[in-house]
Amino acid sequence: MIKTNAGRFFEDYTVGETIQHAVPRTVSGGERALYHALYPARHALYSSDEFARASGLPASPLDDLAAFHVVFGKTVPDVSLNALANLGYAEGRFLKPVYTGDTLRTTSQVIGLKQNSNGKSGVVWVHSKGFNQHDDVVIDYKRWVMVRKQNLDAAAPETVIPDLAAVIDPADLAIPEGLNFSSYDFALAGEAHRAADYAIGEKINHVDGVTIEEAEHMIATRLWQNTAKVHFDTSARPDGTRLIYGGHVISMARALSFNGLANAQMIAGINAGAHANPCLSGDTIRAWSEVLDKAETSAKGVTAIRLRLVATKGDSADMDLRNADGKYCPDVLLDLDYWALMPS
Amino acid sequence: MIKTNAGRFFEDYTVGETIQHAVPRTVSGGERALYHALYPARHALYSSDEFARASGLPASPLDDLAAFHVVFGKTVPDVSLNALANLGYAEGRFLKPVYTGDTLRTTSQVIGLKQNSNGKSGVVWVHSKGFNQHDDVVIDYKRWVMVRKQNLDAAAPETVIPDLAAVIDPADLAIPEGLNFSSYDFALAGEAHRAADYAIGEKINHVDGVTIEEAEHMIATRLWQNTAKVHFDTSARPDGTRLIYGGHVISMARALSFNGLANAQMIAGINAGAHANPCLSGDTIRAWSEVLDKAETSAKGVTAIRLRLVATKGDSADMDLRNADGKYCPDVLLDLDYWALMPS
Amino acid sequence: MIKTNAGRFFEDYTVGETIQHAVPRTVSGGERALYHALYPARHALYSSDEFARASGLPASPLDDLAAFHVVFGKTVPDVSLNALANLGYAEGRFLKPVYTGDTLRTTSQVIGLKQNSNGKSGVVWVHSKGFNQHDDVVIDYKRWVMVRKQNLDAAAPETVIPDLAAVIDPADLAIPEGLNFSSYDFALAGEAHRAADYAIGEKINHVDGVTIEEAEHMIATRLWQNTAKVHFDTSARPDGTRLIYGGHVISMARALSFNGLANAQMIAGINAGAHANPCLSGDTIRAWSEVLDKAETSAKGVTAIRLRLVATKGDSADMDLRNADGKYCPDVLLDLDYWALMPS
Repeated sequence: MIKTNAGRFFEDYTVGETIQHAVPRTVSGGERALYHALYPARHALYSSDEFARASGLPASPLDDLAAFHVVFGKTVPDVSLNALANLGYAEGRFLKPVYTGDTLRTTSQVIGLKQNSNGKSGVVWVHSKGFNQHDDVVIDYKRWVMVRKQNLDAAAPETVIPDLAAVIDPADLAIPEGLNFSSYDFALAGEAHRAADYAIGEKINHVDGVTIEEAEHMIATRLWQNTAKVHFDTSARPDGTRLIYGGHVISMARALSFNGLANAQMIAGINAGAHANPCLSGDTIRAWSEVLDKAETSAKGVTAIRLRLVATKGDSADMDLRNADGKYCPDVLLDLDYWALMPS
Repeated sequence: MIKTNAGRFFEDYTVGETIQHAVPRTVSGGERALYHALYPARHALYSSDEFARASGLPASPLDDLAAFHVVFGKTVPDVSLNALANLGYAEGRFLKPVYTGDTLRTTSQVIGLKQNSNGKSGVVWVHSKGFNQHDDVVIDYKRWVMVRKQNLDAAAPETVIPDLAAVIDPADLAIPEGLNFSSYDFALAGEAHRAADYAIGEKINHVDGVTIEEAEHMIATRLWQNTAKVHFDTSARPDGTRLIYGGHVISMARALSFNGLANAQMIAGINAGAHANPCLSGDTIRAWSEVLDKAETSAKGVTAIRLRLVATKGDSADMDLRNADGKYCPDVLLDLDYWALMPS
Repeated sequence: MIKTNAGRFFEDYTVGETIQHAVPRTVSGGERALYHALYPARHALYSSDEFARASGLPASPLDDLAAFHVVFGKTVPDVSLNALANLGYAEGRFLKPVYTGDTLRTTSQVIGLKQNSNGKSGVVWVHSKGFNQHDDVVIDYKRWVMVRKQNLDAAAPETVIPDLAAVIDPADLAIPEGLNFSSYDFALAGEAHRAADYAIGEKINHVDGVTIEEAEHMIATRLWQNTAKVHFDTSARPDGTRLIYGGHVISMARALSFNGLANAQMIAGINAGAHANPCLSGDTIRAWSEVLDKAETSAKGVTAIRLRLVATKGDSADMDLRNADGKYCPDVLLDLDYWALMPS
C-alpha cells in the first residue's frame, strides 16, 4: 500500500463533500515575532499589546494574514498539491482575531467543479473555514484552483459554478467584539490620516522596496506548513527556480503599505485576489494601493475602507495595473481587493 | 592568561570524568516556531496543543529533535570543537518531553578512549545527559567522535571501549506519562496508517525535497547554540564551503518523513546514526525510510516502530543505502536508526 | 495630500522638540529565540531563566542589544531615514532589563544642530529614551547623524552642540534591582575568568568568525522594525548592494565576544560607538576586545568592566584598530566602547 500522499486530482472531488484538513497548529509569540522578522509589518495594533488594549481588544492579535496563511496552509495537501494554477479568492472574511495560544484547524467544502474543455484538468471551487480551539470560525473564504486530472478517462462531473459576490457587502464584515477607535493614538500608530482623509479613487505609492531571498520565503512558507513542492525544491520546476508562495507576496505588499496606510489596521475581508505574475528570489517587491470604497461600520469610530493592493517587481511609480489590452502589466505580481478597518 | 576556549584535545580526556557543559537554555514558543519555520515539520502532536492534550500530554512538546539539538549543542565546545569526525550515536533515549518554559543543561561523562595508531588523534566516547530545571534527565545518549591530539608527545591513555547496545530493547524505551492513543484522530494527524499497517522490511519514499540555503542552516545551528566553526565561517574549511550541521539533515529528513509516516509521532530512542556524506548549501535533501521492527509498549494503543531514516541529496527513488562494496552510496547523507511511537 | 512618510530633513528639526516615535512593540519569547538564531549569543543570563534567577533577576531578560535595537528601530523613520551617516553614540545607559511581555516605545528630544559648511546637510543630535509599558525608561542614549537638507534655501539654525561625556561615570550606571553574583556558577556560565582576572590594557581575540548572508541581516533588521531602505532594497544604493544595519554588526561582535568574555554578562552603558566601515553580505565578521577600565559597583560581587569591542571583516589576529595615520584600518567595521557587568 502506498503510504505517501500524492494529493488529490480533479476526478477526486465531489460537490458537497467536506474535507477535514490535517495538522492543527497552535500559534505563539514565536509566530508573531517571525511574521515581523519576515515582513516589514508595522501596524501598531499587531505590534503592541498596549495599543491593542487601547483599541478594545484583549491583546495584540496575530497578524490577520499570518492567521490566513496558517488556515490556508492546511488546505494545500488536499486542494492544491496538484494545482496548475491558483485562480482566485472571494468572500474572504476575518471573523475573529487570532491570539497567541490559539489552535487553528481548517475544513474545506467543495462548492464547484468544472472540467476544462481539454479534458486534462478542471477548476475546483472550495469554501474553506479556519476554526480556533473553541470551534469558532476565525476565517472563512472561497478559492478556486485549476487541478490536473490523473485519470484522463474519468467522466467529467456535472458542472457547478458557485455564485460568488464580487465584493463583500460591508454590512457583512465582522467587527471584532469591543473594537473601538475613539481613543486612537495617531502618533503611536505612525500616521495622522483617518478614513475621512482618503478619497475614493486616490492612489498611494508606498515607496519602499524589499529584495527577496530564497531563505526568507522558504522560512515563511514552511512556518505556515504549506507543503507545495514548487516553493522548496529546485528540481520541481523545469527552470530550476523556486516559485515564491503567493501569500508571501501578499504579506510583503501589505506590510509595505504601512507607509501611507498605517491606520488601515485590521483586514476585515478579501473581495478578490489574483497572482498576476510569478515572483522569484531576487525580485524587489514594491506596492501601491488604490482606495476603492468606504463604508461606516457598527463600531464606534471605525470605518471600513476598501483597498486595491498591488505588488510589483519593478518600479511602481506609474501605478499602472493593466496594459492597453486589459492584461496585467508584466511587473504586476499581485492584485488584491480587500476591506480594512480604519479610524473614521 | 589565554581567555578563549580552544576546545579540548584527545589528551585532555580521562575515562570516568564528568564535564558540566555551559550555557543552560530556556526554550519558548520562539524555538517551537523557528523549528517549524526551518523544517517542514508537521507531526500533529508537536504542532497542536489540542492534539497533544487528546493524546494525554499537558501541551504540545518541543519537537524531540529540537530538544536533542539543544542538549547536543551544549556539548560541542567541550567535546567536538576539535573533532575530526562525528563517528556515531548509540543508546539515545528520550525520557521526558520538553515543554516551553523548560530550561535545559547537559553533562557528559567520558566512557571510552582509544588512541589511533597514527598517534595524532583518538576516539572519545561520551555519555551525555540533558536535564530540565527539575534535574530530570530528558535525553540520554552516547556518541563518539575522533578528536585531534594537540600534544603529540602525550602518552596514549589506556584503551577503554564501552559496550554499547546495537539496538535499544523496546522495553527500555520511556513512554511519556499519560500518553494514550486510544482516541487518536487520524484525519487530524494527516494519514490513516497505524502501526499494524506497516510491514517489517517495508520501504517508504517520502517524495518531497528541500533545497538548502546557507542562511537557514546557520540560523538553525545557532539556535541550538552549536559553536562549531565549520558551520559558520567560510575560512574554516580549505574549500571555503560551510559544512551543514548533521543535526540539520536529521531534522530535515525527519520532517520530510511526515509524508508516509505522519503517525510516527514521537521519537523514543536513537539506536544508531551515521553522517554518511557531507551536506552543503544548494543540496536538495530527500528522505526514505525502512521499517526495521515493531514492538508493543506499556501504553494503551501505542506501538514502538523501529525505523531507518535515510537522507539523500539526489533522487532517492531507488532507495539504495550502500554500494556493492558495502560503502554508503555517494548521495546518502544520513543513516539514522530510531524508535518512534505510533498508534497501534 | 501625500500620505507617505518621506522622513525628516535637516531643516525640519528644532532644538528642544520631542518626537514621539511610532509603533510600540511587545516582545515575546519569539524575539528572544530569533536573537539567538541570528547571533551566536551564549551569555548565560540571557539564555537561562534559572541562571537569571540565581543572579537575582525574576527571569532571563531580552538581550540588552535586542532591546536597544527595538528602541533604536523606532527612531529610524523620524531621525535617520534621510541620514547620510550615523556619526556616533554617547551616554547610552541600560536602566532596566526588558522582559518578554514588555511593550517598548521611544521618544527622541533634539539636543543639538549644526549645519555643515556646504549648506547641503547638517548634524542632528538626539537624546532618545525607550520606555516600557509602565513608562519606566529602560534605555537612554544620545546619537548624532548627518542629515540631508531638502530645501537648500532654508536658513541655518543656531548651532547648538551638546556637551556629551566621553565616558559614563561608572557611579551613574544602573545596576538592575536585585542583581547579585555572589552565587555565580562559572561552570554554567562557560568560563572561569572573573573581573579580577582581566588586566586593563589586555586584548582578547575572540577567535570565531561568521560569514554573513543577506537573508539573516534583513530578518534581523526587520525584526527591530528598522525601515531604512539601504538594508533591504538593492536599488537604493548605486552599487546594488544592501548595506548591513550597523546594529547587526554590534550584535554579532558582542555574541562572538562570549569566547573570552563569557562573564561580561550585562551591558550597562555605551560610551561611544563608530561604524568604521560598511559591512556587506559575504563578509566574515570576527571580533576582538580590549579592557579599558574596571570599577566596583553598589551590587554584591558585581564589577563594571569597560571594554572596547572591535568587529573586523578580515583576520583580526593582529588586533590593530587604526593605521599610522590615525584612521581606522580598512578591515575594522565597528569600534564600540561599553560598560559590562561581571562577577568581581
